[in-house]
Amino acid sequence: MTEPPQAPPKFDAAFREQLESLFVWRRDVRHFRTDPVEPDLIEGLVSQACLSPSVGNSQPWRFVLVEDVARRRAVRDNFLKANEAALSDYEGERAAAYAKLKLSGLDDAPVHLAVFADKETERGHGLGRQTMPEVLEYSAVAAVNTLWLAARAAGIGVGWVSIIDPAAVCKTLDTPEDWRLIAYLCIGYPAAAHRDPELQRAGWQSRGHLKDFLFRR
Amino acid sequence: MTEPPQAPPKFDAAFREQLESLFVWRRDVRHFRTDPVEPDLIEGLVSQACLSPSVGNSQPWRFVLVEDVARRRAVRDNFLKANEAALSDYEGERAAAYAKLKLSGLDDAPVHLAVFADKETERGHGLGRQTMPEVLEYSAVAAVNTLWLAARAAGIGVGWVSIIDPAAVCKTLDTPEDWRLIAYLCIGYPAAAHRDPELQRAGWQSRGHLKDFLFRR
Repeated sequence: MTEPPQAPPKFDAAFREQLESLFVWRRDVRHFRTDPVEPDLIEGLVSQACLSPSVGNSQPWRFVLVEDVARRRAVRDNFLKANEAALSDYEGERAAAYAKLKLSGLDDAPVHLAVFADKETERGHGLGRQTMPEVLEYSAVAAVNTLWLAARAAGIGVGWVSIIDPAAVCKTLDTPEDWRLIAYLCIGYPAAAHRDPELQRAGWQSRGHLKDFLFRR
Repeated sequence: MTEPPQAPPKFDAAFREQLESLFVWRRDVRHFRTDPVEPDLIEGLVSQACLSPSVGNSQPWRFVLVEDVARRRAVRDNFLKANEAALSDYEGERAAAYAKLKLSGLDDAPVHLAVFADKETERGHGLGRQTMPEVLEYSAVAAVNTLWLAARAAGIGVGWVSIIDPAAVCKTLDTPEDWRLIAYLCIGYPAAAHRDPELQRAGWQSRGHLKDFLFRR
């Protein structure tokens, strides 16, 4: 339904400065406090995520709160198995550094949120997907990013677990066949706030400069 | 390089309200004013996008400002061809509605920005990509979403063109072989501000409700 006309908001310099500060201080959180997050707060974050851009306004994002203890344990086992296989790809010092990184907040985070893209959604009527069908998944990724920013603004931390077998997650969560796993998120109050990425603090990978990322043709 | 310690910012209720308003008023813009956007402003948006999350801190995003007239024309031709093919998929009323939607701001937008993911970046040392390698592309998508929000906060509009042959864009822009096109963005001052998506205003696709998107297991 189209909303009645409304004056567009003005975003001033003070807001833009705070917004950049939000980008700077958004972290991939792996260390959580175990106290619960209010359910209303989580629903509010998902609602904000649903304001993200999507191809043809298809809104393909599907959020699944994983609450069942057995399912959470199955996801944890999935991660452990995938992590072990991933570790075998690294040798020597790097492997040691890797092992030191606490890669999963799965045990401590009070909220597990799996995010999917519904590949067969009828919303949007297929618009904009003929030559780059992957934009459907990309729309769900944008929603993850939006949720992440909204969470950080509310003092909530998010960690994205990608070392996981996505097909097994779908099976564990008994999701429809056409849903593709985009992200498995751990959510909760962070144990600490940091300005720099954990992987930078751990000496794994520092940040590049604008000249490494911006080109002209 | 790790920054010196700094007190984390506090994001208050007023900021969170403005942030949600930013999510609400971010639009996929197709109608641009033709006056230029200051180059510093564009660089500032790209810098903010580089603060996005990325798997293993791999920062795979690559931004290409398309300035050459012949290259811009080639991208426009690419879009026209892909759009014609896409139109043939629709029939009757829907096709008429589709044709009415101005799908491309390519002609008016002063700035064309192509966004790629560097599939072979050494940054991040492959961390987190073994079971879901597509998270590399997803990291570049997060950067697009961040740029979009920063742009809206600065009064700048962004439109994402996905009806385009990605391989042809790579050829036109002469990008390295390992770069994969994620998004082709039109950027400029919007002709108007809207609260509702253009596709909703045009009767193509309205928004769903939280119950359509949030599930429990």
